[in-house]
Amino acid sequence: MNSVGRSWLLLTGFVVFYVIYLLFGALVFSSTERPMEDRLRRDMEVLRQEFLNHSCISAASLEHFLAKVLAANKFGVSVFSNSSEPSNWDLASSMFFANTLVTTVGYGHTTPLSDSGKVFSIIYALLGVPFTMLVLTACVQRLMYPLVIAPVGLLQRTGMKLQSATVVHFVLLLILVVLCFFMAPAAVFTVLEVSWSFLDGVYFCFISLCTIGLGDFVPGIQPGQKYRQLYQLSVMVYLFVGLMMMYLLLRTFHKMADLHGLTTYLQLPRCEEFDQEEDREPIVHSRSEAESLSCTSEDQVGKSLNPGSQISYNTINKG
Amino acid sequence: MNSVGRSWLLLTGFVVFYVIYLLFGALVFSSTERPMEDRLRRDMEVLRQEFLNHSCISAASLEHFLAKVLAANKFGVSVFSNSSEPSNWDLASSMFFANTLVTTVGYGHTTPLSDSGKVFSIIYALLGVPFTMLVLTACVQRLMYPLVIAPVGLLQRTGMKLQSATVVHFVLLLILVVLCFFMAPAAVFTVLEVSWSFLDGVYFCFISLCTIGLGDFVPGIQPGQKYRQLYQLSVMVYLFVGLMMMYLLLRTFHKMADLHGLTTYLQLPRCEEFDQEEDREPIVHSRSEAESLSCTSEDQVGKSLNPGSQISYNTINKG
Repeated sequence: MNSVGRSWLLLTGFVVFYVIYLLFGALVFSSTERPMEDRLRRDMEVLRQEFLNHSCISAASLEHFLAKVLAANKFGVSVFSNSSEPSNWDLASSMFFANTLVTTVGYGHTTPLSDSGKVFSIIYALLGVPFTMLVLTACVQRLMYPLVIAPVGLLQRTGMKLQSATVVHFVLLLILVVLCFFMAPAAVFTVLEVSWSFLDGVYFCFISLCTIGLGDFVPGIQPGQKYRQLYQLSVMVYLFVGLMMMYLLLRTFHKMADLHGLTTYLQLPRCEEFDQEEDREPIVHSRSEAESLSCTSEDQVGKSLNPGSQISYNTINKG
Repeated sequence: MNSVGRSWLLLTGFVVFYVIYLLFGALVFSSTERPMEDRLRRDMEVLRQEFLNHSCISAASLEHFLAKVLAANKFGVSVFSNSSEPSNWDLASSMFFANTLVTTVGYGHTTPLSDSGKVFSIIYALLGVPFTMLVLTACVQRLMYPLVIAPVGLLQRTGMKLQSATVVHFVLLLILVVLCFFMAPAAVFTVLEVSWSFLDGVYFCFISLCTIGLGDFVPGIQPGQKYRQLYQLSVMVYLFVGLMMMYLLLRTFHKMADLHGLTTYLQLPRCEEFDQEEDREPIVHSRSEAESLSCTSEDQVGKSLNPGSQISYNTINKG
């Protein structure tokens, strides 16, 4: 087979595997979730029957009532009498919603009710999503030196080869991110949210920082939440910093994969051509500053890192 | 002020503007949504009172009942008697859920109920999200020649300058994507979904293709939906192709911004260093094929496009 045919075959293989992967997921979800759902359905049936038996209302009027209750619930409005609970659209909650729009997390626990709200959401995200990516990228570029380039240089100074140093560094960074941005927040959420288990906390952190944002767990929406506005603000900061770290991790992985020829193996675009330019001219980050950084603010590692070792990480020839 | 100070000032400006942008969004959402919410709350209060007046049940027992109904509803289980409606976890729905996980859209209209489901979701997304990005990237690289490089070459042949050609091409591509992936699907959804307006359709397409996925509108979940499984499958295909086109649009914009020096102006990493390599060695796409493509399968434009014009688009020196 010639290379044209082979390359098309490979792409077809990818797509076929993608469909198989979806089918596999579907089978697992179907088998784990269906029994739970069936039990919940039976419970609901019993509950409804009991409710009807102990009251004088007709099934029809109950359903009419419930249809309206559920429709309102979809928009975050509760039917409960103690509806002194705060609005979903006070300033802090609205800002939380705006934040989930521009980061593309989109929990959907609150959604715009009005047509003007929907139109504004579209325009707001249209400008906000690229701008958020720009701010995140600018911040990550600032973090590349202290969190990636300097530590790798430090590891090299201990006599480690560049390739091993990047692997050790990536594993350490991964552990750090998992501990600080998944385990620690999950523990905090377990304490602050009455009904969350530790697994629920980890699940929330993961679903959020991957920007999937299913919205089955959203912090700070339980009734009677203390310091709700401060809490929501903290979650927003957590989401932003967490997304930044996820992006940093991804870039570090890409760099490491480059260095080990993984990207060449998969015929993926390499990081380095991009980074040579980028690391010298990052967003809102001048070259002179990058140079001054390595001489001044990072003295403890600065002296140990000669410029050559730094450049070698970015520009190493994998030939 | 020296360049170090200036560059930090610029980053601080970005972050301050980001916070202002969130605050601005919060104010608008709060002012457009709050009145709607208040009205809905009052309606609910009246509804509940009327329901209690016309029946013999106590407020306490009603609330106890409703609390359970709403909790079950959160997991997609309805209390209605005609619960012959299909499961959220049949094969098609589970596959739809798996698809919203790996594309990070995450509507959240169905969410895993069991702990094992949550753990599997985490592992599934951990592998699935990068793999989906890989498949999307591989497909987009295939589309770059027929949908970007060839049309720009064609426009250049009409005597247009490269810079103007890229702008004209981008605008045409944008119109094409808006028509084929926002307006046309929105019209289809308006017909197929009883309760959706055209705006709801556009809003759904936008929220989905940005991977925000709020989940307030999800196709194919209305009761009594005909051909539900086929419908869900079609939406999955739409989402995949739509995301591919969004990514293509983004890449085309990045290339155009490069060419017009926008990325230099914002000190953003340029596309071209990256693309020179990438366009020659795309994912599952050998160099020989790229060459053969321009000579064989694209005959109608192939002859008009000399290789030089193609390369010039990727490698033009903006100096």
